[in-house]
Amino acid sequence: MTPTPENIDLLIEARWIATVDTNQVLKNHAVAVNNGIILAILPVTEARNRYHPTTRKTLNQHILIPGLINLHTHAAMSLMRGIADDLPLMEWLQQHIWPAEAALVSNQFVLDGTRLACAEMLRGGITCFNDMYFFPQAAAQAACEFGMRAAIGITALEFPTNYANDADDYIAKGIAAREACSHNPLISFCLAPHAPYTVSDRSFQRMATLAEQLGLPIHCHIHETKQEIEDSLKQHGQRPLARLSALGMIGPEFIGVHAVHLEDDEIAALAAANCSIAHCPSSNLKLASGFARVAEMQRAGINIGLGTDGAASNNRLDMFWEMRLAALLAKGLSGDASTLPASEVLRMATLNGARALGLEQITGSITPGKSADLCAVSLSESDCMPCFDPISHLVYVAGREKVSHVWIAGQCCLDNNTLLTGSDIHLESSTALWQNRLEVCIGAKST
Amino acid sequence: MTPTPENIDLLIEARWIATVDTNQVLKNHAVAVNNGIILAILPVTEARNRYHPTTRKTLNQHILIPGLINLHTHAAMSLMRGIADDLPLMEWLQQHIWPAEAALVSNQFVLDGTRLACAEMLRGGITCFNDMYFFPQAAAQAACEFGMRAAIGITALEFPTNYANDADDYIAKGIAAREACSHNPLISFCLAPHAPYTVSDRSFQRMATLAEQLGLPIHCHIHETKQEIEDSLKQHGQRPLARLSALGMIGPEFIGVHAVHLEDDEIAALAAANCSIAHCPSSNLKLASGFARVAEMQRAGINIGLGTDGAASNNRLDMFWEMRLAALLAKGLSGDASTLPASEVLRMATLNGARALGLEQITGSITPGKSADLCAVSLSESDCMPCFDPISHLVYVAGREKVSHVWIAGQCCLDNNTLLTGSDIHLESSTALWQNRLEVCIGAKST
Repeated sequence: MTPTPENIDLLIEARWIATVDTNQVLKNHAVAVNNGIILAILPVTEARNRYHPTTRKTLNQHILIPGLINLHTHAAMSLMRGIADDLPLMEWLQQHIWPAEAALVSNQFVLDGTRLACAEMLRGGITCFNDMYFFPQAAAQAACEFGMRAAIGITALEFPTNYANDADDYIAKGIAAREACSHNPLISFCLAPHAPYTVSDRSFQRMATLAEQLGLPIHCHIHETKQEIEDSLKQHGQRPLARLSALGMIGPEFIGVHAVHLEDDEIAALAAANCSIAHCPSSNLKLASGFARVAEMQRAGINIGLGTDGAASNNRLDMFWEMRLAALLAKGLSGDASTLPASEVLRMATLNGARALGLEQITGSITPGKSADLCAVSLSESDCMPCFDPISHLVYVAGREKVSHVWIAGQCCLDNNTLLTGSDIHLESSTALWQNRLEVCIGAKST
Repeated sequence: MTPTPENIDLLIEARWIATVDTNQVLKNHAVAVNNGIILAILPVTEARNRYHPTTRKTLNQHILIPGLINLHTHAAMSLMRGIADDLPLMEWLQQHIWPAEAALVSNQFVLDGTRLACAEMLRGGITCFNDMYFFPQAAAQAACEFGMRAAIGITALEFPTNYANDADDYIAKGIAAREACSHNPLISFCLAPHAPYTVSDRSFQRMATLAEQLGLPIHCHIHETKQEIEDSLKQHGQRPLARLSALGMIGPEFIGVHAVHLEDDEIAALAAANCSIAHCPSSNLKLASGFARVAEMQRAGINIGLGTDGAASNNRLDMFWEMRLAALLAKGLSGDASTLPASEVLRMATLNGARALGLEQITGSITPGKSADLCAVSLSESDCMPCFDPISHLVYVAGREKVSHVWIAGQCCLDNNTLLTGSDIHLESSTALWQNRLEVCIGAKST
């Protein structure tokens, strides 16, 4: 006797599934989803007998992967995409980015900018992003509108902005934003001290204490440039990482962003402390910061995720670019083409990011019991033919434009390349308005 | 009295035009085309009075650029896209690429593979490619079917293949292919000695003589890996470039491919001889060859174009990727974010490539009198917003999927993302057939 099929919300049948909890690729399997949770991964024929889905999606030319996790961004800076390219770092910051931010950043700026970023990220298969910017409640609101998972930064630095007066004020406002979002299961928070050169010892210590009390990750720029290290040696008599370590910041909850300039003993220390790194290869090159020692960090056992950084320094919030670039750079630097293979880079862009954010029980792989945060990538077009290895194609051949479907906690956000969430938001008009204001502010030529 | 408008074939009105013969961007200008030749570039309002076009194309959200020139590829290797990724170079070559080529390469393989490559390149805005492979007549046929401009290699090496027995046989067959194509104005030829480690002194000398007699460029891999240099020192007592120089190969007609490992004096020598370099950044990283010294070569005055290399080592024939990667790497290596700005990288991908191929009177910039080889890129979608500088957006923001239109010698090959040339060729079935044969040949798992 055939048992009665079980009613479920969603069955996704795919030609290939990369679950990421192993490196194996499943062929002609299906993912069964109910109430936003992955129930099972099983052969299509078996799934059709066992389940009666409300929605069935058949993806005959696609690889289904976990939703991508962008481990470092300043989402609202999308409004400053390409505002000042090909300039030296300090000129970029001091003459363009900081004046623009000082003049214009507001709750509405962050809301509109994060909306623009969410649309871009969702279309590119990103289901979760780790954000560091001002007005965190506005960022959280935008993520909610698009149905995205986000880790929002309780950002802090010492100097005043439109958002807050001093580090204590930043922290208080960030904690309040966290409380206001406590009802939303897709929104989590990180303590986000901006960087060693903008945050005092006292504030770092406060944030280390808070991280422990609240059980939150710490998200901080670290060793991005040589200059930052030299300045720290002058001012504090030690390198930034040593200083942060002495202040109690360095532990399993620490996510160090960039980490371009590391000595061997610093890699060993980060590994011993079970830290995570957010590797941002495009940004590291575009701002001429340098080449992160990813292969060495990986060998040491550091958990490495990938981040796009903000659109003012990348200028794409595109995890496909970061995956491919990370793999290529690691090979070029090591002199060994087998360094950082495609499957490992996919893990960085998914499960490793989830682990860094303390979300590995919830997302980052296609595993029964986890949230259905999924991304389907079509490999059907002639520029993806032939296909000998779908994971290799995902990293080296496909671009983000091949992302056809995205689900977050089972909700379909992108359906056959059409955005379903946030679709009532008029990104074009709000972006044009901010562009005009920015051009006035920095005296840019109108395009 | 208003003069009667002049009848012309085509008027393309664009929001922005980057002509590349200057770094200026023209706003709301038009390109007038007749008989495949660019007549004029002028403001849209003026163009509408002056011309009566058979076809008018209005591109309100686009930047029009010269068609991209892929200065180094092995087009037919598209059939081996991703066949053996993440492997050390010698294992890749000896256990995968060479056995597959030995078993399968034929006139039909090259025809089908080059067709697949042409479709990919055209969709990505490439109007001209410099090819090095076997069965050049088949490659030329594929280019003709797609209406593409191509410089086809008179490839030669010493060892026998399915195509030819020895260097003299390769050269004779290449010369015959050139004669057979002499009626096609879009097809030119290069002498293409494969590399210093596969070609003898005698054959190099023959090809240097032929290049001079026939007025052809020379297209040759050079200093791709450290191993190649060490082997040459052992075998010939000199580095490959010195050897080629002594054999009379190094002059304005020489296009050195890769050129990853160069000493200062070698850069100076290449500059002094007015050589060109085909920089292939993706391939150099993916095969772990290293980082080419592009900023130094550029400062020395070497003419540098960009190439994708073949799809077995890249795995995208994507000049947008190469442009962005070249710009990012140059910044990372130099430690200066202003190195290799977007406008310079666009010049590499267009005019510099044309110059290397001896085609600078014909293509490479939007200049009256040149062939109408053009590419339109749409910057309208939200992931390209806002836009402060369209050339910067072209390089750092847009991907090849934003290419909407391509014209070659005035013929529309891609119209609003739809391929018009070669559209009757069944790429899917021919590629599937070769994939099956390749999988049998190398014992690959079926996907």
